[in-house]
Amino acid sequence: MHVLITGAAGFLGQRLTRALVVRGELSGQPLTHITLIDQVKPKVPTSSSLEASSHAIDITLPGAMDAVLDGRPDVIFHLAAVVSSDAEADLDLGLAVNFDATRTLLEGCRLRGLSTTRLIMASSVAVYGGDLPEVLDDLTALTPQSSYGTQKAMSELLINDYSRRGLVDGLALRLPTIVIRPGLPNAAASSFASGILREPLSGKDVVCPVSVDLELFVMSPRRVIEALIYGAEIPGHDLGSRRSLMLPGITVCVAEMLESLRQAGGDEAMARVQHKPDAGIEAIVASWPGRFNNQRANALGFKGDFDFREIIKDFLDERD
Amino acid sequence: MHVLITGAAGFLGQRLTRALVVRGELSGQPLTHITLIDQVKPKVPTSSSLEASSHAIDITLPGAMDAVLDGRPDVIFHLAAVVSSDAEADLDLGLAVNFDATRTLLEGCRLRGLSTTRLIMASSVAVYGGDLPEVLDDLTALTPQSSYGTQKAMSELLINDYSRRGLVDGLALRLPTIVIRPGLPNAAASSFASGILREPLSGKDVVCPVSVDLELFVMSPRRVIEALIYGAEIPGHDLGSRRSLMLPGITVCVAEMLESLRQAGGDEAMARVQHKPDAGIEAIVASWPGRFNNQRANALGFKGDFDFREIIKDFLDERD
Repeated sequence: MHVLITGAAGFLGQRLTRALVVRGELSGQPLTHITLIDQVKPKVPTSSSLEASSHAIDITLPGAMDAVLDGRPDVIFHLAAVVSSDAEADLDLGLAVNFDATRTLLEGCRLRGLSTTRLIMASSVAVYGGDLPEVLDDLTALTPQSSYGTQKAMSELLINDYSRRGLVDGLALRLPTIVIRPGLPNAAASSFASGILREPLSGKDVVCPVSVDLELFVMSPRRVIEALIYGAEIPGHDLGSRRSLMLPGITVCVAEMLESLRQAGGDEAMARVQHKPDAGIEAIVASWPGRFNNQRANALGFKGDFDFREIIKDFLDERD
Repeated sequence: MHVLITGAAGFLGQRLTRALVVRGELSGQPLTHITLIDQVKPKVPTSSSLEASSHAIDITLPGAMDAVLDGRPDVIFHLAAVVSSDAEADLDLGLAVNFDATRTLLEGCRLRGLSTTRLIMASSVAVYGGDLPEVLDDLTALTPQSSYGTQKAMSELLINDYSRRGLVDGLALRLPTIVIRPGLPNAAASSFASGILREPLSGKDVVCPVSVDLELFVMSPRRVIEALIYGAEIPGHDLGSRRSLMLPGITVCVAEMLESLRQAGGDEAMARVQHKPDAGIEAIVASWPGRFNNQRANALGFKGDFDFREIIKDFLDERD
């Protein structure tokens, strides 16, 4: 079993690589080869039983992924992306990474006859937006209000079509807002959602740029990684012709997140959160839906978090 | 007022050109210049008051539309497309014409600062498909079951995003199945819908490849042309952030269409229809919805046909 990961040096890519190496198999087949690519050379995992290679590649350059696709991966985790705020600031870069590179991967699979290769793209709750019903489901229209969401929605459509034509075995998993991301804030409009918990719990001040009433649809890093791996194993016939899927997040408002922060870190942690509304961030994040009917994801066997306290506990356990 | 029409040599392009020349204005501004492009050089209308130019252009070639965009059109009717069966047969051609050329037009407007140019793309009912509610509305998900529908849905998303960013003033109008098209059958999967009426009324035999129970969502050529022109005039702020719209068709099943044929042409005309099911055509056409809530289109002022008899009468009047 040969696995290719794009965006492998990123937060999810590194975690996914570690999880796959620990697991050592996919769909009952031993993991024999892992290829990691990113703008910077991803760290190669240490494993005696695994052939691992790692490359710094600009996936927007013509032919850049030819060599890794010639390796005929059985599973491709396509995690490389320009985050929402960056895609909003630079339309060309967003289109090149978030859409054109997906198309290049699909074409690469088609040209090489990789029709059974499972291509899993990380999509996003940002494909939704605007005037929406209170609770969304998988038949709600994609009306993204950001260039990031647009580019992901276009990629989803193309993955569906290439899969329908039998050119690849694709799946787009729409990620809820991931909470709590470790590390530093990034340019994602949703970066605050982790920051308002992570920073106070580390003794640092943080700005909350949105209203405390704002509802978010969230998933922990652990559950996201489990879902990506589950997505690699689920049989294509279970997916049918609908190759896009919202992962089963949980709905939580910012006030509830802050109450969990108080429970975990006390009033001292709470005092580190300053409220300074940022209309730009609020506009993007508020355009994403907060409530989603997880029926299809649950029926397919994807698992979400139990509650928000579990998410905080996971973060603290991992940090310790 | 300078109007550019792509696909101007096609059925809709020719009609739209004639209608615009007769009208002589758009949004109260005199029509001073019309630029027509297609694979073959479109016929130039004869009008003393109008500067008209016509070019044979392969819009899939790099830079092919630079010169016409340098003319800074105020309105672009983007009608050029590869029809459904052809797009299914040739994925590359479909992507190049139905998606990439739309992107080229959007980029061309962006580069030239044509932010107030109204770009109207002819989209299609084929953006819908698969398991759908009985009656669709503008918040139903786009789950196309054909490459044609996929490419149109991707183009719609891009038009929405470029319009949201203020780079162009775009609008994608989803055309119902157009009935009755004059002329010869074409490679559109929906070609039969006109053929089963047009051919018997002209004394020719025809094959009906679908079940008579199949429901279609249809609009006459006259109403489609009126809607395209109305789409050029409707103010952008009325459209808001949702720049895709299903035109108000009417729902009719094949049996009702054939009954109208009998009323217009008698038993002799009916006897010219042979029923030979074609699973490929039925699969594509049956994946399109037959019933649609026209509320938004009606509220915006778009007008559909009164009933199917009016559609037949229009065809006969025009032919005579």
